[in-house]
Amino acid sequence: MSVVSLLRDALGARVDVSEQARREARADRSGHAAVGLPLAVVHAESVDDVQQTLRIATATRTPVVVRGAGTGLAGAANAGEGEIVLSLRRMDAVLEVRPDDLLAVVEPGILNADLNAHLAAQGLWWPPDPASRDISTVGGNIATGAGGLLCAKYGVVRDAVLGVDLVLADGRLLHLGHRSVKGVTGLDLTALVVGSEGTLGVVVGATLKLRRLVPGETCTVTATFPGVRAAAAGSAAVTAAGIQPAIMELMDAASLAAVHALLALPAPTPGAAQLTIQTDGPAARAEADAIAAILSAHEGVPVVSHDPVEGDRLLAIRRSMHAAMASLGTTLIEDVSVPRSAMPAMFDEIARIERQFDMVIPTVAHAGDGNLHPNFIFEGPETPPQVWAAADELFRAAIRLGGTLTGEHGIGVLKRRWLADELGDDQWRLQRDIAAVFDPLGILNPGKVFSPDA
Amino acid sequence: MSVVSLLRDALGARVDVSEQARREARADRSGHAAVGLPLAVVHAESVDDVQQTLRIATATRTPVVVRGAGTGLAGAANAGEGEIVLSLRRMDAVLEVRPDDLLAVVEPGILNADLNAHLAAQGLWWPPDPASRDISTVGGNIATGAGGLLCAKYGVVRDAVLGVDLVLADGRLLHLGHRSVKGVTGLDLTALVVGSEGTLGVVVGATLKLRRLVPGETCTVTATFPGVRAAAAGSAAVTAAGIQPAIMELMDAASLAAVHALLALPAPTPGAAQLTIQTDGPAARAEADAIAAILSAHEGVPVVSHDPVEGDRLLAIRRSMHAAMASLGTTLIEDVSVPRSAMPAMFDEIARIERQFDMVIPTVAHAGDGNLHPNFIFEGPETPPQVWAAADELFRAAIRLGGTLTGEHGIGVLKRRWLADELGDDQWRLQRDIAAVFDPLGILNPGKVFSPDA
Repeated sequence: MSVVSLLRDALGARVDVSEQARREARADRSGHAAVGLPLAVVHAESVDDVQQTLRIATATRTPVVVRGAGTGLAGAANAGEGEIVLSLRRMDAVLEVRPDDLLAVVEPGILNADLNAHLAAQGLWWPPDPASRDISTVGGNIATGAGGLLCAKYGVVRDAVLGVDLVLADGRLLHLGHRSVKGVTGLDLTALVVGSEGTLGVVVGATLKLRRLVPGETCTVTATFPGVRAAAAGSAAVTAAGIQPAIMELMDAASLAAVHALLALPAPTPGAAQLTIQTDGPAARAEADAIAAILSAHEGVPVVSHDPVEGDRLLAIRRSMHAAMASLGTTLIEDVSVPRSAMPAMFDEIARIERQFDMVIPTVAHAGDGNLHPNFIFEGPETPPQVWAAADELFRAAIRLGGTLTGEHGIGVLKRRWLADELGDDQWRLQRDIAAVFDPLGILNPGKVFSPDA
Repeated sequence: MSVVSLLRDALGARVDVSEQARREARADRSGHAAVGLPLAVVHAESVDDVQQTLRIATATRTPVVVRGAGTGLAGAANAGEGEIVLSLRRMDAVLEVRPDDLLAVVEPGILNADLNAHLAAQGLWWPPDPASRDISTVGGNIATGAGGLLCAKYGVVRDAVLGVDLVLADGRLLHLGHRSVKGVTGLDLTALVVGSEGTLGVVVGATLKLRRLVPGETCTVTATFPGVRAAAAGSAAVTAAGIQPAIMELMDAASLAAVHALLALPAPTPGAAQLTIQTDGPAARAEADAIAAILSAHEGVPVVSHDPVEGDRLLAIRRSMHAAMASLGTTLIEDVSVPRSAMPAMFDEIARIERQFDMVIPTVAHAGDGNLHPNFIFEGPETPPQVWAAADELFRAAIRLGGTLTGEHGIGVLKRRWLADELGDDQWRLQRDIAAVFDPLGILNPGKVFSPDA
């Protein structure tokens, strides 16, 4: 009996073999697509659906690619020839919210923004705030360790997950982690699952650590600078001064020009770069004023706004970056992260790579935490070799500066070629062997992360 | 050639075979001691010393027990017959402090308090704040996932470690983690090492995530309650009201009486329990007042102090708990952690166990995060069977309430018997198999954590 027949016997109409569904599951938002068509898309509606799918996959040695909303940027959820796509998008329930314990238990398929709308009604929020929050799932945020705009002040995904329910490749269900603030019982497998990109198991539930909505006003500081290096130095000066904004976003001249064009705003001053900074909490106003003073002393021209509507409007410019890039051509969005003090040096490296390869690399950065997104724009579906060559220079520069290949997008297929460069061969093998303890047959997302031959 | 001869050839006078050193390495602060005497204590002074020791251990299949200051409370660093003790206490350098990147790179043997004194001079601190901070090492804090008083507001150890340098059982050195705020390159092995209690490798260096010293005053609220359940309900009401104190400590009547006796303070009201709460940051004063109002509405009699010296004096009562217990006899300090809302129910369970076993169990709690330390007091060096029977009831009650065996002390030898009860057999085996990937010969801390036969 074929794999598809077995799946249909077990799961009925939740097995989708339409060409459209299989075609859509080949690609994510990275622009990259897998080769060939997957066998079927299973739309799981329960933990049991997931377990049944994995038991069939194990019995037939069929690879499984887990998928949320397909908004990844590294190809980790792209499914190809001979693979089962296991979609968790329909498992989107909020199972429990406990304001007194500051936790929520959710299914993985809920969108980040939908969860936060639900929580806001109770005065709560879940801090992970990827730029994709309106379209990406909580399960996907966990699988990739998605970061976002608020990490410097409010932490990374790993800090915001207390436990996960994980279905192993053979269909067994494990409950990892705990519901208490503290817990050191054995190894921290919850943290290991965060960012594991579908290689260890299928996250079918998550216990999330919540925060109360921050009381008080939010202030917004925008500042223009003569160039990107000055803007980076300005943001580093804010961090070095001991002020912790909630958000500190940097846009270089090319990014700013593209977004202004997309939104039909007046063209910005040529060459000018911009910081958009938000402060929150009881000291928001004082911090915004202090930040404005620091930026003025670092070649910036700051404007402070206390109007939340105006603040949202100003941040919307930053949030339109992805759409602006997509309007220019096919985009490879990179994701290097460096220590904050190395931000100016990293922008120097980007400028060097632009000259070396004679290309423009529009770059935005989560400047508060040193996470840069350089964008490579090209025509057609295939990433040209010279773009990969320039990206290779970029990765090596980030690692040289004490940084990392990927701050929040993950390795997927697009960066597996460089993974061992950063980890070293010994750690690379150790990580691969740990994944094999979870998935001895190697059926979970094969060819992703630990497959060196790109 | 004997193991000791090999060690001496390689490490000379850093190999200590004195009976005193070997005897001291048998025990930690749990009161529990290993059987027999270890072979030798290696006082490592460099990464190379650690690597050489582990190469000899691997070549001769000799077990290695890593040790910092020996202040553990679960027996994880206790060394016995035929084992090498690898002490990292002399590796206590601060290698780098970067205020602009909010990170420090340190050797593992530095005491937590010494590190924080060093950092304070630059306006910085490392948040993990175990009650043992004056006598415990940073490496030990990392190995156990030590918690402390500040976790609800400032996070657990896992949130405060960006990377570790790890020597594997065979002597290879790995650099795990990163120096940037964000980083999702492969599996998060740094988080896996935190709390792994010497079973995965030897932490020879750590990149720590720092915070700026919190500006503004610290306010202290003490409140007495007619009983421990009322105090627990009061603390839960503070959390439920959305106020986040820096510290919220609870002492029951027996604890309070013991500490007052030790410090020669007037005897407290019989049966009365106490909360000691500190608020910090820009809103410290308003939060303290709001907390006092909540506690008044929950049977508490609060007193607010804005005097930092008085605040230290009030907290010193709580910090004297360990000494007060030690003055009463041999102590088994337990460490269950439950969701905050379950604190009153957990105190009901403790009262039930006290009645059932006809014993007094003085209990303090980090009430802000639901972590309780019930103390069993007895005569002589051996934990009596009825104490283990009562502890068994305690652990099962915590797990039933959605909590965990250990919030911050770890499994060591004292709780390995219960580990599979919490994890389930499947996860227990998975964790053990992951440890075996790091240490295939099983020479790192054998008999600890994953050894079920206590």
